Amino acid sequence: MGEVYFLENRHNIPVCFDYFFRKIPNSGGYVVFAGLEDLMQALETLHFTKEDLAFLRTLSFHSSYIDFLERLRFQCTIYSAREGEVVFPNCPVVRVEGNLLEAQLIETLLLNILNFESLIATKASRMRFVADSHILSDFGLRRSHGPGGILATRAAMIGGFESTSNVYAAELYGLETSGTMAHAFIESYDTELDAFRAYANTRPVNCIFLVDTYDTLQSGIPNAIIVAKEMEQQGRRAAGIRLDSGDLAWLAKRVRAMLDEAGLTYMKIIASNQLDEYVIKSLLEQGAPIDVFGVGTRLVTGQPDAALDGVYKLSMAAGKPRLKLSDTLQKTTLPGKKQVLRVLDKNGLFFGADAVTLIDEHKPNIIYHPYEPGQSLHIAHLEQEPVLHKIMENGKRVTEAVRLPEIAAYSTRRLSLLPAEFKRFENPHIYKVGISKQLLDLRNKLKDERVTR
Amino acid sequence: MGEVYFLENRHNIPVCFDYFFRKIPNSGGYVVFAGLEDLMQALETLHFTKEDLAFLRTLSFHSSYIDFLERLRFQCTIYSAREGEVVFPNCPVVRVEGNLLEAQLIETLLLNILNFESLIATKASRMRFVADSHILSDFGLRRSHGPGGILATRAAMIGGFESTSNVYAAELYGLETSGTMAHAFIESYDTELDAFRAYANTRPVNCIFLVDTYDTLQSGIPNAIIVAKEMEQQGRRAAGIRLDSGDLAWLAKRVRAMLDEAGLTYMKIIASNQLDEYVIKSLLEQGAPIDVFGVGTRLVTGQPDAALDGVYKLSMAAGKPRLKLSDTLQKTTLPGKKQVLRVLDKNGLFFGADAVTLIDEHKPNIIYHPYEPGQSLHIAHLEQEPVLHKIMENGKRVTEAVRLPEIAAYSTRRLSLLPAEFKRFENPHIYKVGISKQLLDLRNKLKDERVTR
Repeated sequence: MGEVYFLENRHNIPVCFDYFFRKIPNSGGYVVFAGLEDLMQALETLHFTKEDLAFLRTLSFHSSYIDFLERLRFQCTIYSAREGEVVFPNCPVVRVEGNLLEAQLIETLLLNILNFESLIATKASRMRFVADSHILSDFGLRRSHGPGGILATRAAMIGGFESTSNVYAAELYGLETSGTMAHAFIESYDTELDAFRAYANTRPVNCIFLVDTYDTLQSGIPNAIIVAKEMEQQGRRAAGIRLDSGDLAWLAKRVRAMLDEAGLTYMKIIASNQLDEYVIKSLLEQGAPIDVFGVGTRLVTGQPDAALDGVYKLSMAAGKPRLKLSDTLQKTTLPGKKQVLRVLDKNGLFFGADAVTLIDEHKPNIIYHPYEPGQSLHIAHLEQEPVLHKIMENGKRVTEAVRLPEIAAYSTRRLSLLPAEFKRFENPHIYKVGISKQLLDLRNKLKDERVTR
Repeated sequence: MGEVYFLENRHNIPVCFDYFFRKIPNSGGYVVFAGLEDLMQALETLHFTKEDLAFLRTLSFHSSYIDFLERLRFQCTIYSAREGEVVFPNCPVVRVEGNLLEAQLIETLLLNILNFESLIATKASRMRFVADSHILSDFGLRRSHGPGGILATRAAMIGGFESTSNVYAAELYGLETSGTMAHAFIESYDTELDAFRAYANTRPVNCIFLVDTYDTLQSGIPNAIIVAKEMEQQGRRAAGIRLDSGDLAWLAKRVRAMLDEAGLTYMKIIASNQLDEYVIKSLLEQGAPIDVFGVGTRLVTGQPDAALDGVYKLSMAAGKPRLKLSDTLQKTTLPGKKQVLRVLDKNGLFFGADAVTLIDEHKPNIIYHPYEPGQSLHIAHLEQEPVLHKIMENGKRVTEAVRLPEIAAYSTRRLSLLPAEFKRFENPHIYKVGISKQLLDLRNKLKDERVTR
């Protein structure tokens, strides 16, 4: 496509693309938008290396096009929701304005980063929702999708995780590391007690004993208590124990009682093993005295859906609004340069509706269902705040890079404005997305023109 | 763990670890082992960078340990199944022998690469199984897990895909690229016909028209036929058309008839849109005349399970076999240095059983169910071939690096030896895994020692 645009001298046609998704993954009620800072960094440094250009020369491209790519730098302008924002289907989350070739070229890069990080941030936020004030720690790198695990850890922090066992991601993003021993550590010693003692002597700070290598209640906990008591005599405190198998609710209660009876009330219980938002919810409902949840596979893969279906669609070209038709109105795109307005209720909470408008419109009094003719909602009496903000102009950032803890804090704040009905797991309340009269009319006009052509 | 080993001067204790998995993902009957070459490359170049070391210094490690890490290079010996091999639960797929610290240190790296690539190669092979001789092309980068998409593409090739739209992976691994225009390309022109003509003029080789931007049968196909006929007058042939929405079976039949009627019998039909092994199977059962399947999300995410549960477990330390106990015998590990023997039937096909033995044993005459006492299988009359081969000695490869096409060809060959009953999707036949008498006795002896301690 890029070569055709270039050779036909169409590559500088001004265009606008929207990034949006159609379906919330894993039957949820919202998506936490993540990946923006990673995308910004990729776009600011976008270029073709010598190796890239050499490879492209083998693919029968015209040499003038390869020469053009050698000089190419990203110069578009981007409006975006803030990273960590709570976002909803069919609303533009990112708007890219600029020349046709560059705006088109970044499609896969943009989708790859934003779809994945948003998927994981959303998944993490669901665990945060049910974990209440308990600590959540990412243990997922061994099951994550290759180097995608680095982005998974970052996104988990945005969704509300506190720490990670992914030391490389911690190095990149300045995160808190957490970890303990593996079963192999214990097996490499002749006895479990030797292993616990060795660990306590060498790494007494944040010392967590893995207690299920041989038998949790008969061996692991009694040995952990012996070593924790020895640590007390040295003026130290063991941090806790980790359960990694068996019935976590049943074991946690018995373990808590054993530790308390030994006067080790300060020792925490860390649980891991195939956890997800449903298991965490169930464990806490059963009163399991677990302090820290270590979550792996089902966090970093975004299982079961494992993908956010975000797409990147042309909405303007050469000054004209554009749309893609479809058999179903749901897949027909919204034309024109658009803004999204978040409607707030009188308490400043999310009212439960976003308005999609054209950028040059006033705030709408009424919004219309995009696919169900006749359905509308009056929002004139409610406050509306814009969701999309300019973050890049002609390829240069116009806002400061935002650090990860700030993004996570923003996400927590925004999620706190979303009523709980939208966060529950079973049939969450459906957040309304409406479009302005002007946008509705434009969409229908373009659709009719195409259909009757 | 590493620091404890080092400070206690245990880091050079000789050990053995096994990589194996317990459950075949997505209810399948086998796993295609992939990722080995990527792992070998990572291990040969394993080192801590200046930045890594500086970060680790902030984590309260002893400075002598950091100095040790600075000099660390990987020096273990590795035995492995060949990449592309068909493998089964509870059988060691990779065996790592060497010093405790290095063998332990690589756990997450090894699991990250092998679990993910094996997941995707297996998923791809299921599509290959039903796609018969039709072409399969990877379209997944936009939905893959960040840079994990690069490994996904590589693994898809091992599982039987022919080409990819992931140009960067093609550059890295020397793959065939495939691609076509996006809807945005067509929308950026005033008419679909203009867009098709521009593309045909500039990129006449392998020219594929995307026909569903406005209306497949009323607009897309008639326009594609016009331009294909114009190409014929220039002595060229359009390659085909792509369907990306609607009922693919219904549309493909009508499109085939329209193209044939226009004398364009050579034009191929490419289909995409939420394909997986089940949809491909259904389309072909309905007689849909589709030549190429472009598969994205459900290939590169390995959805619905999205993970292979591979683990890395200690089996020997300081000359003694080791095991991890568990409430369930299924999760108790197999101790000792082990080999896997693939049992072949008299026609040279896979008989449907692997034998796990200790390395210094003769080929077993009888193998025993690892968890169901009393169940056994006579295999004395059948040929047995070793699955694990030495590929690295003291950190240096002892075999040539294998190129991707050879790995893919090996996988095809091995899958052809696996009877179809193990490949079907619904309740696939269960491949038997048995252990030798010597291994059974060793496992039970160690278990009893631990339990009665």
